[in-house]
Amino acid sequence: MEINDIDLQSYPGSEKVYVDGKIHNIKVAMRKVSLTPTVKIINGERLVYENAPVYIYDTSGPYTDSSINTDINKGLPRTRESWTAERDDLEQLDGITSDYGRRREADTSLDSIRFTHRHAPRKARKGAAITQMALARKGIITPEMEYVAIRENMNNDMLGIKSHITPELVREEIAAGRAVIPANINHPESEPMIIGSKFLVKLNTNIGNSALSSGIEEEVSKAVWSCYWGGDTLMDLSTGENIHETREWIIRNCPVPVGTVPVYQALEKVNGDVNALTWEIYRDTLIEQAEQGVDYFTIHAGVLRAHADLIQERLTGIVSRGGSIMTQWTVLHNEENFLYTHFEDICEILASYDVAVSLGDGMRPGCIHDANDKSQFLELDVLGELTEIAWRHNVQVLIEGPGHVPMHKIRENMDRQLSSCHEAPFYTLGPLTTDIAPGYDHITSAIGAAQIAWMGTAMICYVTPKEHLALPDLEDVRNGVITYKIAAHAADLAKGHPGAQVRDDAMSKARYDFRWKDQFNLSLDPARSRQYYVESHKGDDRFCTMCGPNFCAMRISQSVADNCVK
Amino acid sequence: MEINDIDLQSYPGSEKVYVDGKIHNIKVAMRKVSLTPTVKIINGERLVYENAPVYIYDTSGPYTDSSINTDINKGLPRTRESWTAERDDLEQLDGITSDYGRRREADTSLDSIRFTHRHAPRKARKGAAITQMALARKGIITPEMEYVAIRENMNNDMLGIKSHITPELVREEIAAGRAVIPANINHPESEPMIIGSKFLVKLNTNIGNSALSSGIEEEVSKAVWSCYWGGDTLMDLSTGENIHETREWIIRNCPVPVGTVPVYQALEKVNGDVNALTWEIYRDTLIEQAEQGVDYFTIHAGVLRAHADLIQERLTGIVSRGGSIMTQWTVLHNEENFLYTHFEDICEILASYDVAVSLGDGMRPGCIHDANDKSQFLELDVLGELTEIAWRHNVQVLIEGPGHVPMHKIRENMDRQLSSCHEAPFYTLGPLTTDIAPGYDHITSAIGAAQIAWMGTAMICYVTPKEHLALPDLEDVRNGVITYKIAAHAADLAKGHPGAQVRDDAMSKARYDFRWKDQFNLSLDPARSRQYYVESHKGDDRFCTMCGPNFCAMRISQSVADNCVK
Repeated sequence: MEINDIDLQSYPGSEKVYVDGKIHNIKVAMRKVSLTPTVKIINGERLVYENAPVYIYDTSGPYTDSSINTDINKGLPRTRESWTAERDDLEQLDGITSDYGRRREADTSLDSIRFTHRHAPRKARKGAAITQMALARKGIITPEMEYVAIRENMNNDMLGIKSHITPELVREEIAAGRAVIPANINHPESEPMIIGSKFLVKLNTNIGNSALSSGIEEEVSKAVWSCYWGGDTLMDLSTGENIHETREWIIRNCPVPVGTVPVYQALEKVNGDVNALTWEIYRDTLIEQAEQGVDYFTIHAGVLRAHADLIQERLTGIVSRGGSIMTQWTVLHNEENFLYTHFEDICEILASYDVAVSLGDGMRPGCIHDANDKSQFLELDVLGELTEIAWRHNVQVLIEGPGHVPMHKIRENMDRQLSSCHEAPFYTLGPLTTDIAPGYDHITSAIGAAQIAWMGTAMICYVTPKEHLALPDLEDVRNGVITYKIAAHAADLAKGHPGAQVRDDAMSKARYDFRWKDQFNLSLDPARSRQYYVESHKGDDRFCTMCGPNFCAMRISQSVADNCVK
Repeated sequence: MEINDIDLQSYPGSEKVYVDGKIHNIKVAMRKVSLTPTVKIINGERLVYENAPVYIYDTSGPYTDSSINTDINKGLPRTRESWTAERDDLEQLDGITSDYGRRREADTSLDSIRFTHRHAPRKARKGAAITQMALARKGIITPEMEYVAIRENMNNDMLGIKSHITPELVREEIAAGRAVIPANINHPESEPMIIGSKFLVKLNTNIGNSALSSGIEEEVSKAVWSCYWGGDTLMDLSTGENIHETREWIIRNCPVPVGTVPVYQALEKVNGDVNALTWEIYRDTLIEQAEQGVDYFTIHAGVLRAHADLIQERLTGIVSRGGSIMTQWTVLHNEENFLYTHFEDICEILASYDVAVSLGDGMRPGCIHDANDKSQFLELDVLGELTEIAWRHNVQVLIEGPGHVPMHKIRENMDRQLSSCHEAPFYTLGPLTTDIAPGYDHITSAIGAAQIAWMGTAMICYVTPKEHLALPDLEDVRNGVITYKIAAHAADLAKGHPGAQVRDDAMSKARYDFRWKDQFNLSLDPARSRQYYVESHKGDDRFCTMCGPNFCAMRISQSVADNCVK
């Protein structure tokens, strides 16, 4: 199998560099962009000034390291495996233990689509508390914690920018539940990253086939592609055929944490019949996926029977797939949601692999009209209760948020989340700030995402231009990721994240110097910025077609600054 | 001449309707979108519910009225001419009076590119105060004021939504300088619109050739195209050849107010030699353009000699073309900016035609680093002084704003503008909230534009994906306009503009009902939303390819709501 249609050339003008850990034997990957010098001719004299390289947070994994030969059939290097090799709180299982996983393994008709380089899963020894949260609470700075501290500081060490982000701060935030490092011990291919309001804003991408769409190759391609453009985590929302096998391919080749919504697969196992869903099927699905290496599960445990009636007051009812499924189940059975009643059992399973829980907002508003209504906030209070239960099990927690919210109602979402959910990291979908722009909902939502991220939301889930209309293709994924990188970075600047402005300043200086290549190389999408310029460019580099030579403000301004102002 | 490459079909599912004035004999154009009924099958019974039509603010002018035959060679109907036919404060001139205009008129080599259906200009009679502001101060509700009051209320009268927007409120806001109706008496083709914080947020589009680019047909096409997608005003920023003739074609065919930056043309008249610019050339340019019908002039009169030195502290100096030109002039001559010293003279000219002044922010920051610096805010104080001078002449005033500003510095821009400039309407370019995304600056800037518009900015100037890289083509104009319609509408919702949410609610209800065609027709870009859906659609209308049939949350939710919840 090969990656479809993707040119995974390294980023232009860039090289992969690694920074060594000081506590642990780790190498933290980042991208170094080298810049050309500034050249000025003043009074006939040619002056040359070097420009320092810029280090960029890099989510692309080994694919952009020219010294590593990646092979999608073998999966990525299992780097994190060695970090835990000597730990005595983990055990190596003989093989997978879920019923479903074993049935798929035994089914030879699946051989042609199977990822063959599988490894037997690991698990916590009985009684051992192995999660990043458990270790942080014990005062241990894990390799993952040191990794993310170095990673968050990109330019700061090099440029002497003072940063509050230290391995000890990371440990404290994880211990307090204010940050999460999704790092299933069975996904050692993943490079550690942190989700918390004191750190860089992260973005999640969604991929996944539906019953009507795409195959394994296409989904793996989308996964790699979304990391290439800057996705920090990846949710596989597949609902079609061969979910188990598709997921194996994705996880083995994914350098970022992978999340899922296990109820989707559970529902497939009962042929889409909500009535037939059971805790036992769901439980087996959790084990199946945890052993594959899923790093976080979205679980709609806050959807309660008592709240189902409230949807009558809404314009668009329930728009969360998981939320609608669990609501229907509670109504059909007239029983409480089994995800809620079994939440302690769920936490026990998650704690054994260090799978984080992302508490799903089944009642997120699906339109401006329904924003901040009673059903939404009642569920949020339930998520707060569940957070405390999860933390008792040392399970790391994210809280999912909306959705569709007009700008003036965004602040209330953030404030209530912080108070109801004890400062667990907030992870929102947008929010979309208007309903009237299908085809452009990456933009309607980036407006809301930038705002809520500035207010403290730790991770924003991207929306592509195809939202509400169709499944995204590769170009939609690219547009969605870049749009959300913009929202996340705008929030990092507004929050005063140490070092965030280094890249903006380098870009602006390159712009003022007419160093076009440096501008492209520093941009979020070097290929596109270069293409737009080149297509219309004619000759002289000292201006562009926007204004032409006589009206280039920066050219005039430079001439004023260099020669005229006393 | 014909409009290039544009399919100006009417919007789908829509018709142009006209609402009669109650005070004046005027007809206010709007777009009526008819919706299909909601059909439900409950317990085998087929229930049909009608859905009320939605009225949409329509900037497209006669081009989308199937009963009007537009001909670009003749120009649009001169509707507003009849509104002033009986006024005795206006006089009809025999012909154009600017030196330059006369020279162009006499030059037969220009015959082939000339717009031939020219009308002789009109002007205020000596001593008469004819501007919308002058009339408002006298207590007169003009046809333009009634027009915009009806226009702003679209759905409210039909749906019984209480609105504070009345003709009298419009008059008060104009009289106080808090709102502007750009309406040169020589641009009677323009449909009145209002710019002020109590009204719908407006968006300006920029077009115009540069020395390196496009011809007259292309610019006229862009003008019509930008109105078709939703541009409220249009700035012609041409700097290349035949500016005079291009502008005539644009104004005669433009249903929205047209703005320019007269110094661009003045500079062309001295072959790009800033040193050779004079007040006399500039003055003649103002008269030339005012007689053609330009509705507002951007004038960089706040750029002072004393402030030029401050640009040394900046990373990207001056990025306003007009600002850089005037700064260079003040430095080369070591004199005060002639736009500042002649500002009273300028106001006298503008008042004679009711051209509004848009006070240019020559010192707007061109990068995150330079945001909210001393030179920016010193200039803003000068714009406040100039505002008072203009108002003494009954000249309507807009204040231009940045630029590049990180989110946490946006509020200060709005607060200072309000206090320094006496609540004159603010008109900002974005602001862009990060520098690192060339190729996507429509998005970096829409994030800032939505925020500052919510805070009270009355008009936002669009940015296209080509910003910083090249001149926009038609597709870029479309993307820029739609992106800014999103920002403006998100702000209207957040401000609680009466009736703004009607369209969102209609869209969301259509979404919940799976009325796809209604969704397309109600969307900002019907063609694109339809295209995305159709390309991937397969059969059943009761779900889309995003989730497939089993995982359609809204389908499940409806089934719960209709059949299960008690």
